[in-house]
Amino acid sequence: MTLIVEKFGGTSVGSVERINAVADHLLAKHAAGEKLVVVVSAMSGETNRLIGLASAITDKPSPREMDVLVSTGEQVTIALLSMALHTRGNDARSYTGGQVSIKTDNVHSKARITNIDSAKIINDLDKGRIVVVAGFQGVDSDGNITTLGRGGSDTTAVAIAAAIKADECRIYTDVDGIYTTDPRVVPEARRLDTITAEEMLELASLGAKVLQTRSVEFAGKYKIPLRVLSSFVDGPGTLITYEEEGTAMEAPLISGIAFQRDEAKLTIRGIPDHPGIAHRVLGPISDAHINVDVIIQNASAKGLTDLTFTVPRGDYPACMELLDSLVDTLGARDIKGDDKIAKVSIVGVGMRSHSGVANKMFKTLSDKDINIQMISTSEIKISVIIQEDKLDLAVQSLHEAFNLA
Amino acid sequence: MTLIVEKFGGTSVGSVERINAVADHLLAKHAAGEKLVVVVSAMSGETNRLIGLASAITDKPSPREMDVLVSTGEQVTIALLSMALHTRGNDARSYTGGQVSIKTDNVHSKARITNIDSAKIINDLDKGRIVVVAGFQGVDSDGNITTLGRGGSDTTAVAIAAAIKADECRIYTDVDGIYTTDPRVVPEARRLDTITAEEMLELASLGAKVLQTRSVEFAGKYKIPLRVLSSFVDGPGTLITYEEEGTAMEAPLISGIAFQRDEAKLTIRGIPDHPGIAHRVLGPISDAHINVDVIIQNASAKGLTDLTFTVPRGDYPACMELLDSLVDTLGARDIKGDDKIAKVSIVGVGMRSHSGVANKMFKTLSDKDINIQMISTSEIKISVIIQEDKLDLAVQSLHEAFNLA
Repeated sequence: MTLIVEKFGGTSVGSVERINAVADHLLAKHAAGEKLVVVVSAMSGETNRLIGLASAITDKPSPREMDVLVSTGEQVTIALLSMALHTRGNDARSYTGGQVSIKTDNVHSKARITNIDSAKIINDLDKGRIVVVAGFQGVDSDGNITTLGRGGSDTTAVAIAAAIKADECRIYTDVDGIYTTDPRVVPEARRLDTITAEEMLELASLGAKVLQTRSVEFAGKYKIPLRVLSSFVDGPGTLITYEEEGTAMEAPLISGIAFQRDEAKLTIRGIPDHPGIAHRVLGPISDAHINVDVIIQNASAKGLTDLTFTVPRGDYPACMELLDSLVDTLGARDIKGDDKIAKVSIVGVGMRSHSGVANKMFKTLSDKDINIQMISTSEIKISVIIQEDKLDLAVQSLHEAFNLA
Repeated sequence: MTLIVEKFGGTSVGSVERINAVADHLLAKHAAGEKLVVVVSAMSGETNRLIGLASAITDKPSPREMDVLVSTGEQVTIALLSMALHTRGNDARSYTGGQVSIKTDNVHSKARITNIDSAKIINDLDKGRIVVVAGFQGVDSDGNITTLGRGGSDTTAVAIAAAIKADECRIYTDVDGIYTTDPRVVPEARRLDTITAEEMLELASLGAKVLQTRSVEFAGKYKIPLRVLSSFVDGPGTLITYEEEGTAMEAPLISGIAFQRDEAKLTIRGIPDHPGIAHRVLGPISDAHINVDVIIQNASAKGLTDLTFTVPRGDYPACMELLDSLVDTLGARDIKGDDKIAKVSIVGVGMRSHSGVANKMFKTLSDKDINIQMISTSEIKISVIIQEDKLDLAVQSLHEAFNLA
């Protein structure tokens, strides 16, 4: 029998009707011979309702208590979905993160999974039960409830798939697969049948928000076949594959174009150029659990250097505050910031074996009079930071230039 | 320092405003030198909302999944109350039943507490933290979430008080103490400053719904001073005391009058009179987790016997069904039932040392032309079953006859 993990997000379980529809779907799969573990999110709207309650009490809720609060959202869903499965004749079992021993570190609201005890799950599957697990949540080594942060239910699904050695992990979403870029920006955007994990990883981290980065990393590490499908429309979705040696030659030059609107950039200027500058500037940012994205350091005149980096726009004020407190310590001149920027990236394993890709990208943008503020490259992607109001034009031009339609 | 457990029910934490008021109250107590554990219920309305979601999916939700579902209600409250305490400067910690190791048996929706590990609680208290525990819930030995049934948060509070050897356990409710009877029926009803645990136990089990029977039993077993107070109005409430030897002489004859409206009675008639009849009839009822209250067995003519008992009205149809299936096995003649009955009881440790109490009760009812259908007595109470529509009159007459105003 095939061993499958399926994950349904908040919209897919957003009402009693949707939960019943998911139950019907699962029973059909089960009847077709699949052993099934289902990971579910909170019903859409529920997490916001809970956050609203907290906001009515305090502006700065304790992260530990926020996790206690919001983790109830998934717990409600697992109970309801299990009941829906019971009425259809399956002796399903629900488990919270803690109950199925999803162990995490103790970084509340952004915890990372460290271990999963799969014995309970396997035991239930062997009895023909569909196992329903609360996504997004775990427990730390002291038994405190933790949550995995945005999109954490995807990570839960992949981690369970890895732990039970599943044949496939299916992520049901409100889109029917991975596209060459966002169809809302480029109507000609095309669904990809397959994409490599590396490309997907770059796309996910660059703002194609279908899957959480960590879930793709996890899947890649354990070579879990991961499929993105629509929970509303039947279809094959997009399968994320793992590149074999020597297949890169046949890959298309570029698989997709990702972009990220809500970025901000900060520059700390005129720092006396000693070793360890980057660490001294970015260490405190990292300690505050803010994800730094693009980092560029340039030596300027007279033994001084400038360091520029980008962060999610929401973290911009906190970053500014942190940098302010560093200016004197570092002997830097000043700080500049811009929270009206965006990032656009082209991604493809094909660029490893083809030259001229970067140049084509720069020329395309230049032809449209789009100024490039920062450039960052990796083996399979090239990212540029541009003014936010030029983003749509940039994506459309690049999609056309690389023949992705 | 005094070690106190306080419990707040759903109405007392029914809104963000109420939760803030409870937090203010707790901080004042804490500042006055009390070490505090707080047990809370779900916000009023929340449990019904969750049950509504389940009802939309199935008429017969699995008890295991219902417990997973409804236990989220208290979990929301503990997080919100802890946040409210944080904003007031106390480093409070919340715990679900499972987190603080409230172990129960595995009877979902009516579980009984078997053990509490108090180490975590004590450790937090020693650090000056207010400890906030979810009432009503626990985990069985397999880690399944269980709930304790109606009023279970009271039981949680008392069980914790016993485990940590608290100096007092305070149950905050929407009434300001225990009354001689329900003031809605008898406006002259009087709040008692103290009442013995035995009397309270009889009153609770007889329908004075201020406290759950089990919580009073628990408190009595461990001699936990238990106080019932209003969460809306300041006042001393009613302290439940434990009778010392030799003090009964000074006790008032009768402490209070309890009654229970929603009762039903069933009679199985003409059973051939062999030993073990009661067990064979009531065993299946007990197995179905239905609480049988008054039981009366009378030998009738020709070696036949009748067995009559009362149950909560909600369990009447299920009981009828069970008895129907027993008539043939037992060789009984038939079954009779009446679900329009009520029970009224007078309670007082004083009746141990005074005679004539029962007779006074019967005469009072007779004078008002109220027919007694069943009589049941214990050391400190006398209960009678009467027609439901005579209940108010019975309570009022008895309250006056025993000078309780």
